[in-house]
Amino acid sequence: MPKRTDAQRPGEFELIARYFAPLSGEGAFGLIDDAALVSVTPGKALAMTQDAIMAGVHFLPDDPPNLIAAKALRVNLSDLAAKGATPAAFSLSLGLHDGWDEAWIAAFAGGLASDCASYGLSLSGGDTFRAPGGPVISITAWGEIDPAAYKSRLGARPGDLLFVTGTIGDGAIGLKVRLGEAGYRDLPAAPILLSLYLAPRPPVRFAPLIAQFASASMDISDGFVGDLRKMALASGVSMEVHAGNLPFSPQVREALALPGAMVAALTGGDDYQILFTVSPARLEAFREAAALQDVTVTQIGHVVPSDAQSPIFIRELKGVDVTASAGSYSHF
Amino acid sequence: MPKRTDAQRPGEFELIARYFAPLSGEGAFGLIDDAALVSVTPGKALAMTQDAIMAGVHFLPDDPPNLIAAKALRVNLSDLAAKGATPAAFSLSLGLHDGWDEAWIAAFAGGLASDCASYGLSLSGGDTFRAPGGPVISITAWGEIDPAAYKSRLGARPGDLLFVTGTIGDGAIGLKVRLGEAGYRDLPAAPILLSLYLAPRPPVRFAPLIAQFASASMDISDGFVGDLRKMALASGVSMEVHAGNLPFSPQVREALALPGAMVAALTGGDDYQILFTVSPARLEAFREAAALQDVTVTQIGHVVPSDAQSPIFIRELKGVDVTASAGSYSHF
Repeated sequence: MPKRTDAQRPGEFELIARYFAPLSGEGAFGLIDDAALVSVTPGKALAMTQDAIMAGVHFLPDDPPNLIAAKALRVNLSDLAAKGATPAAFSLSLGLHDGWDEAWIAAFAGGLASDCASYGLSLSGGDTFRAPGGPVISITAWGEIDPAAYKSRLGARPGDLLFVTGTIGDGAIGLKVRLGEAGYRDLPAAPILLSLYLAPRPPVRFAPLIAQFASASMDISDGFVGDLRKMALASGVSMEVHAGNLPFSPQVREALALPGAMVAALTGGDDYQILFTVSPARLEAFREAAALQDVTVTQIGHVVPSDAQSPIFIRELKGVDVTASAGSYSHF
Repeated sequence: MPKRTDAQRPGEFELIARYFAPLSGEGAFGLIDDAALVSVTPGKALAMTQDAIMAGVHFLPDDPPNLIAAKALRVNLSDLAAKGATPAAFSLSLGLHDGWDEAWIAAFAGGLASDCASYGLSLSGGDTFRAPGGPVISITAWGEIDPAAYKSRLGARPGDLLFVTGTIGDGAIGLKVRLGEAGYRDLPAAPILLSLYLAPRPPVRFAPLIAQFASASMDISDGFVGDLRKMALASGVSMEVHAGNLPFSPQVREALALPGAMVAALTGGDDYQILFTVSPARLEAFREAAALQDVTVTQIGHVVPSDAQSPIFIRELKGVDVTASAGSYSHF
């Protein structure tokens, strides 16, 4: 608790003025006030989410700071997109490790600035503090939504079709590359896999289609199998998936022959794609609208009545038992 | 990054269901969804703030968990009250130290539950994660406000009267008790001072008067002198304070003869009271309304035109130089 000063490093208020205030928007008072004033269009509500990432748990301390910033932000954008909400702003709690220097902050803020520009976001407030063992970054992000269009994970009904955006497993295989696991580190696609692990690319632009067409939706962050099970339990249904339909990227296909690769791809997490259901009555309109998007979507199965034996069935997954393994990332 | 399981401890989802879901409110989906749906009354906006506290920095790891929870929440309620907003809900990012057990979680959640009841709050979401070196807790809190009534720290004008709620210095002297400093630990009022340090008592019920009458307002969290200077600089004015008018509690008065006590009381932070200004035209109406409250307020000085030499003048502070010392808590 003793105060600490370090003449070689800028103080909190200089850091905020120099690196974070330029990211601030309307209602943020240039980040010099205690709070932010967040306006909401009449008739709209806010979808709001808060997720943290911590050194040694969600990223490695020597990962590039701009990618740590991107990951901290995007894990939250992923949640909002899965609810059908386009993100508008965020606040930032930044716990700095004892060895931080100004170059680290500059790179971290640069990562935020880049994503603010890409996604049309502004920074509304937050705090910085000393965090031995950090960095630790907790971001709260929000976006406006028509309350009737908010999509929870509770609305899947038997007969609905099950979809995912993008591809599955890139993040989990990328983590194996990051950890230097034998076989994985030598893959020709190792650099691509690593970059997808370090900075996920949630399909933020797909949010309006989720709002318009999904019956249930969630982001895949803790592992495809475990998250699918969570949606099934939340909706009171079971899910039937055809393994042959699961979308894998070329770089994940390249890795699948390695030991543990399929289990990692299906249960490892860090996908930040959207798992969602569409009722048959909306299917044709959904397909027409989705065809105009640059986000790929794949129908991987369908929703069936709740089966007390098992909330999920994965057909044709030859020789790989993913449901017996934990199936979902444990945060502890 | 390896997964970790521990059969002796409940998993993340059990913890949430058992201890945190009972605190959740409307739009939180029982804490099983990726985000929360936050409704806002038409014509209102949200005042929103995010502040974190970390073991070894803002509290000691062996502090009682219910008081750690109260502190994590109340530092945010303090910000909202100072903006004139009554808090309504919050989200929680909880980073758990490796040695956590279920009793710690139960006590921590009990602290939140108690404050939810006292202040009329609900929990809307957030996350839990492993935080070696923690606990670290980042809370985002918000409350509705008429956008025109939001009070920043930028609105103080020369001639305005300067007030504080409650008393100054209890938290900073309480920290000296907590650290066992000679003299302080033996004060008869040591237990009271300690409890005020561990769990501050921001004047949340005073928020409507701030909204109605203040010209500028901020919470005192980083030290009275430094925070006064921040308000002066933000408003482009100087502040003149009469030291004899500063409100000290009986327990702080008891400590003031000890070495370093006056400097700690005025610069040490952890007050979580409100520093605010009222224009002369509103003074009589403000005094009438304030007389009906159970929150004490003290006029400590007034706002003067900006003086380039010094943003603040503290008159009659015999033999104590607080402006030369850092004057504000450094978060690093």
